[in-house]
Amino acid sequence: MDMTFKRKPLADCVPELVATARGDQAATLVITGGKLVNVCSGEILAGMSVGIQGGRIAYVGKDVSHMIGEGTQVIDASGKYIAPGLLDGHCHIESTQLTVTEFARAVLPLGTTGGFFDAHEIANVFGLKGIKLMLDEMRGTPLAAYMQVASCVPSAGAEFETTGASIGPAEVAEAYTWGEDVIGLGEVMNFPGVVYGDEKMLGEIQATLRAGRYADGHFTWPSSDWRLPVYAAAGVTGDHECVTAEDVIERVRLGMYAKMRRGSAWHDVAKTITAHTEHGLDSRRMMLVTDDRSSESLRDEGHMDFVVRHAISQGVKPVTAFQMATINTAERFGLSRDIGSITPGSCADIILLDGNLADVNVVLTIAAGIVVAENGVMTVALPSFQYPAEVLASVHLPTRPTAEDFVIHAPIVSGSLATRVIKVLENHVETLELIVNLPVIESKLQVGAGNGLCKIAVLERHKGTGNKSVGVVEGIGFHERAAIAMTVAHDSHNVLVIGNDDELMAQAANAVADAQGGVAVITATGVTLFPLIIAGLMSAEPFEIVAAQSAAISKALYEAGCTLNYAFMTLSLLALAVIPTLRLSDKGLVRISPEEGIQLVPLFCEELPS
Amino acid sequence: MDMTFKRKPLADCVPELVATARGDQAATLVITGGKLVNVCSGEILAGMSVGIQGGRIAYVGKDVSHMIGEGTQVIDASGKYIAPGLLDGHCHIESTQLTVTEFARAVLPLGTTGGFFDAHEIANVFGLKGIKLMLDEMRGTPLAAYMQVASCVPSAGAEFETTGASIGPAEVAEAYTWGEDVIGLGEVMNFPGVVYGDEKMLGEIQATLRAGRYADGHFTWPSSDWRLPVYAAAGVTGDHECVTAEDVIERVRLGMYAKMRRGSAWHDVAKTITAHTEHGLDSRRMMLVTDDRSSESLRDEGHMDFVVRHAISQGVKPVTAFQMATINTAERFGLSRDIGSITPGSCADIILLDGNLADVNVVLTIAAGIVVAENGVMTVALPSFQYPAEVLASVHLPTRPTAEDFVIHAPIVSGSLATRVIKVLENHVETLELIVNLPVIESKLQVGAGNGLCKIAVLERHKGTGNKSVGVVEGIGFHERAAIAMTVAHDSHNVLVIGNDDELMAQAANAVADAQGGVAVITATGVTLFPLIIAGLMSAEPFEIVAAQSAAISKALYEAGCTLNYAFMTLSLLALAVIPTLRLSDKGLVRISPEEGIQLVPLFCEELPS
Repeated sequence: MDMTFKRKPLADCVPELVATARGDQAATLVITGGKLVNVCSGEILAGMSVGIQGGRIAYVGKDVSHMIGEGTQVIDASGKYIAPGLLDGHCHIESTQLTVTEFARAVLPLGTTGGFFDAHEIANVFGLKGIKLMLDEMRGTPLAAYMQVASCVPSAGAEFETTGASIGPAEVAEAYTWGEDVIGLGEVMNFPGVVYGDEKMLGEIQATLRAGRYADGHFTWPSSDWRLPVYAAAGVTGDHECVTAEDVIERVRLGMYAKMRRGSAWHDVAKTITAHTEHGLDSRRMMLVTDDRSSESLRDEGHMDFVVRHAISQGVKPVTAFQMATINTAERFGLSRDIGSITPGSCADIILLDGNLADVNVVLTIAAGIVVAENGVMTVALPSFQYPAEVLASVHLPTRPTAEDFVIHAPIVSGSLATRVIKVLENHVETLELIVNLPVIESKLQVGAGNGLCKIAVLERHKGTGNKSVGVVEGIGFHERAAIAMTVAHDSHNVLVIGNDDELMAQAANAVADAQGGVAVITATGVTLFPLIIAGLMSAEPFEIVAAQSAAISKALYEAGCTLNYAFMTLSLLALAVIPTLRLSDKGLVRISPEEGIQLVPLFCEELPS
Repeated sequence: MDMTFKRKPLADCVPELVATARGDQAATLVITGGKLVNVCSGEILAGMSVGIQGGRIAYVGKDVSHMIGEGTQVIDASGKYIAPGLLDGHCHIESTQLTVTEFARAVLPLGTTGGFFDAHEIANVFGLKGIKLMLDEMRGTPLAAYMQVASCVPSAGAEFETTGASIGPAEVAEAYTWGEDVIGLGEVMNFPGVVYGDEKMLGEIQATLRAGRYADGHFTWPSSDWRLPVYAAAGVTGDHECVTAEDVIERVRLGMYAKMRRGSAWHDVAKTITAHTEHGLDSRRMMLVTDDRSSESLRDEGHMDFVVRHAISQGVKPVTAFQMATINTAERFGLSRDIGSITPGSCADIILLDGNLADVNVVLTIAAGIVVAENGVMTVALPSFQYPAEVLASVHLPTRPTAEDFVIHAPIVSGSLATRVIKVLENHVETLELIVNLPVIESKLQVGAGNGLCKIAVLERHKGTGNKSVGVVEGIGFHERAAIAMTVAHDSHNVLVIGNDDELMAQAANAVADAQGGVAVITATGVTLFPLIIAGLMSAEPFEIVAAQSAAISKALYEAGCTLNYAFMTLSLLALAVIPTLRLSDKGLVRISPEEGIQLVPLFCEELPS
C-alpha cells in the first residue's frame, strides 16, 4: 500500500473515481453496512456503505459490491457509525508542545483527521521560515492540515518587545504562494489596529482577501461594543473569542463564523453553545474548536472527540454537534468539496464509532483513504521530520544568568517604594495592576521574603541583545523556595523566569538555556526539566513522553504551592503584551488598557498604595 | 452619484469601509430602523440599521447616526423589512427572450439583485463569443451577475445535429480566464457521458475544478438510480433536475446543492420543498431557482419574489425561504463574503419589503449600493449594450423555403407506410414515439388532412448547409390551417417549423428568416410575429413590448387550437436531441433511450402499428 499521505486535487482523481463508482475499477477500500452520519442532510442513515479509491471517496450508497475486487480492503461497519473525520477549526499545535507529527499521532486515534493551524508561536521565533517548516511537516502527515499565517508578529510592536521575527503584508502574501493549504490569516489579535485603520493590519487582511483566502479574528472587547461591526467590515469572518452566548450570536449576525472553544484552559462551550440550544440560532455558522490544548489534556480528555462529546452533553443534537466539527468548519474555509462530509469526491477521512453516537467513541480512523488507527492505537508509522540545526538552537543569551541578574536595584538605599505588581487571576487571561509598597534594603527591592510575591523576569533570547527586565508578580502561590523558567512565553517567547529566590531563578534560567529551550521548575529539593528543543517551543520526543514531562511540570508547580488551574499556560501568558492589564516584556513593564492602548510604564511609581 | 454599477473586490474597499464604520467617513447611503431579515443567524431583528459606502455595506447595527454626513442618502425603513436582495441560483436569461439589460429592468423592481446565468442558448449559436457578449452586457447592469459556461454544446454531438458552435474542455478553461464572475460549468446534461467516462465531459469538469470553479448538474434518471452517486463522484455539486422530495433528499445526501425550480413550465417547488417541510431535511443545501421563465411570467407572476412567496405558501418558515434564495445560493458558489446577506463587507444588495414578510412585497431595491427601483418601477436608466452586426444576422438559409420543402416524399407511389411520429405530452419535457400507418398519395406522405397530425421540420440556419429534415408530430392541437416557425429550438436553435399546411409552413419559415430570427404563427387569417433579432433568440425591444409580443404568440397558438400549457416552450423543445424519446434535428429523426443512448432513425419503419 502507498503509505505516503498525498492528497491529490479532486480534478486529478475524477476519471478513476467515476470508473470506480461505476464498477470498472476495483475500490482500494470499502466500508460496508454502517450507520452513516450525514452532515449534509442532517440525518443518520442505516445500512450505508462507502467505496474509496486511493485518497478519495468514490461512492456512497446501499451497495458497493460492484466495486469490490481482489485488492479491495473490506471493513464491516455493521453496528457502528460511519462519520466524517473531525476537524479542528482553530488550533495552535505549539500549545501541545508536540511536533506536528506527534500531534498527528496523538489525535488521529481520537478521530481528528484535519485542522486549521495557526503556527503563531514559531512565527514569533523564526517568522515565515518557522511557519514553512511546520507546514512542510504537516504535509507529511495523514492529516488534512491547513496552515494560517500568523498576523500579529510581534503582537504589540517592536517598541514594546523583542521577537525573533516580524510578519507584515508582504510576508503574508508570500506565504499564500506556497500552496492552497495555506488557507488564511491567523487570528487578528490587533483588533484595535483594525478598527482604527492600522495600515499593516489592514494590509495583511487585504493581501488575504486578494489571495482568495480567509481572515480569522480575535476580538475581546464586549460583543455589544459598537466596534464589532467595524471589525467585521474589514473582512474578518471568523472569531474564536466567544465566551458567552451573546458573543456567538453577535458574530453570526454579522456574517462571521463563531468558533466555540474547549481548550485545556478555555472552557467556553458550555456557555457559548446556548446560542443554539437556548436561543435557537441557526447552527450552520457555529464551529467547535480547541485553540490550545496541552499534551496532558490530549492524553487525559481527548481532542475534538472530547469537544463534540461535551457539546452533545450540553444538549446539542448529535448530528448537529458533528456538523459543528465537520461540514461547518469545511464550509467556513471554502473546503466542503474536499473535507467535512462523507460524499462522493471528498477526501476519504472517515471514522467509525461504537456505542451511542453521543459517546463519540472512535474505534477506527481512516485518513486520506488509509486506516491509520484502530482501537485507540496508530496502525501506521508516520514519516519523521527533521528540523534544521538553527531551529534546535534558538536560545541566545549573551552570558549565563546569575542571581545578580534578578536583583531589582532601587533608587533609594533603604525605605520603601510604591511598586507596580502584576496580579495573576486564576482562570483568566487578563491580569490586574496592583501598586504595592515594598521595602528596600541596601538599595535592593525586597521581594518574596514572606510577602507572597515573586519576581518575574524576561531575558531576550532571539538576538542576543542582553535585554532583560525584572518585575514583581502576585498570585503564584509558591510556599517554599522555588523558581520556574520557560522559553514558552507568549507571544515573543523570550526566557520568562518567575521565582522567589534569585539563585533558583538563575538556576532555572540556565537549565532551559542549557537545554536550548524548555521549562524548568527548581526547588530546594529538585529540578524538573521539560526540554523543548524545537524553537524552544516543542519537544522532539514522542507524545507519551511529552505528556508525562508536561504532567511532571504541573506536579512540581503544584507541590511548590502553585495550584493555579493549568498553571503553566497561565504563567506563560504573563509576557503577552497585548492583553490587559500589566505584563512584562524584555523591554520592561507594559500596561494595556482599552482606553490608552499599550504603553511602557516604570516599575516604581509616584502613587502610594491605597 | 456614480451610476456605473461597478462591484469592486472587497479587498480594495476595506480601508474605506472601516473608516465609514467607525464614523471617520460619511456613508453614501444609510437605511434606518427596519426589521432585518438575518439569513446568517436565521432571525428577524427589529430596529436595525445599515450603513453603506459605495457598493458595499460598512455597518449593520442599532445605530448608524455616527456615519451620516452631508452627502449621505437616508432611507427610513420603519415598518418595513430589510432583506438581502434575492439571488436566482440557476437561470437561462434567453428563455425570457430579453436582453440581459431588459431582464435586469424586469427583475430588479421585483427584488432580484443577482443570479447565476447559463447562457446555454446563445452558446449553441455563437459559442464562447456569444457567452462573452452576454457576460459583457451583464457587467454593465446593477446585477451581481455570474456566468456559467455552457457544458453541452452541442447537446447530442455533431453527428446528430448541426449547431453554430461547439464547446469543449479548452473553451471551458478559456472562459474562466475572463474573470471571477465566470463562476462555473453550466448544467452537465450529458450525465450518461459523465457516468460512462466520456473524455470531453470529464475534461470540462476537470477544467472547472482546476480553476476553482463549480460544476452544476442535470441528472434525469430517477434519483434512486445507483448511478447518481457515480455522477456526484465526478465533482458535480449542484442539480436542478429535482421534481420530487426524494430527488432533493438524494442529492443533498450526496453533497450536492438541490435547486428547486419554479419556472414558467417547471412547477417543482410544491413537491420538492417537502424534503424540508415534511421530511425535515437540513435546508442549508436547498436553493430556489427559476431555470426558465418567460417574459409573460415575469410580468404576470414575478421572478424570485414569486418563487420565495410560493415556497412560504407551502409551509416554509419565511426566513428559511429567504435563506434558500440568498445565503444558500451564495454559499453554493463560494460567494457568501460578497453576496447573499446583509453583513458588513457584503455588497449592498438590499430590498425593503412592506406588509408581512410572507407576502414578499418588494417596495425598494438597492443594488451595489444604489437605489435602482422603487414601488415596482426602475428609478435609474441602465446603459445600453450593442450586439455586433453578425449577432443580429444569424439566420443563414441558402434559399427561401417553399411549400415543396415541406413535402415528405415516400418510397411508394400510393398505399400506406408505418411512420414514426413524435407525440407531444402536455406538461412534460419527454416525448413518446408512436408508429402510425399513414397514407401515401402520388408518392407524398399525407399528414394533417383531418388526422390531427402536423408536420415538423428543422432547417439548419447556422452554416447555410441547406440541411433539412421533415417528420410528423401528434398533439399540437391545431383545429384550423396553421403553422409556427421559430429560431428558438433547443438546443441547436435551427429553424423549427410545425404546421398542417405546407404553404403556411413556408410562409412562417420565411417570416422568421426575414426577421433574422423570431417566432411566427401563421393562420389563414393572420400573421403574428415576435422578432428575436439577437442570435435569433432574444428581442432587442424593451421588456414590456417583449412580454406583449410573447403573449400574442401564445394567444395566436391558442386560437389556432394549440392549447398546450406554455405551448411555445413545449414546442421549442421538440428538437432537443438528448431527452427521450423521439426528436427531430436538421439531420433527421433522433431517438433517445436510457438503454440505447442516442441514434438517428428513419422516418419509415418496417414495423406495423400495433
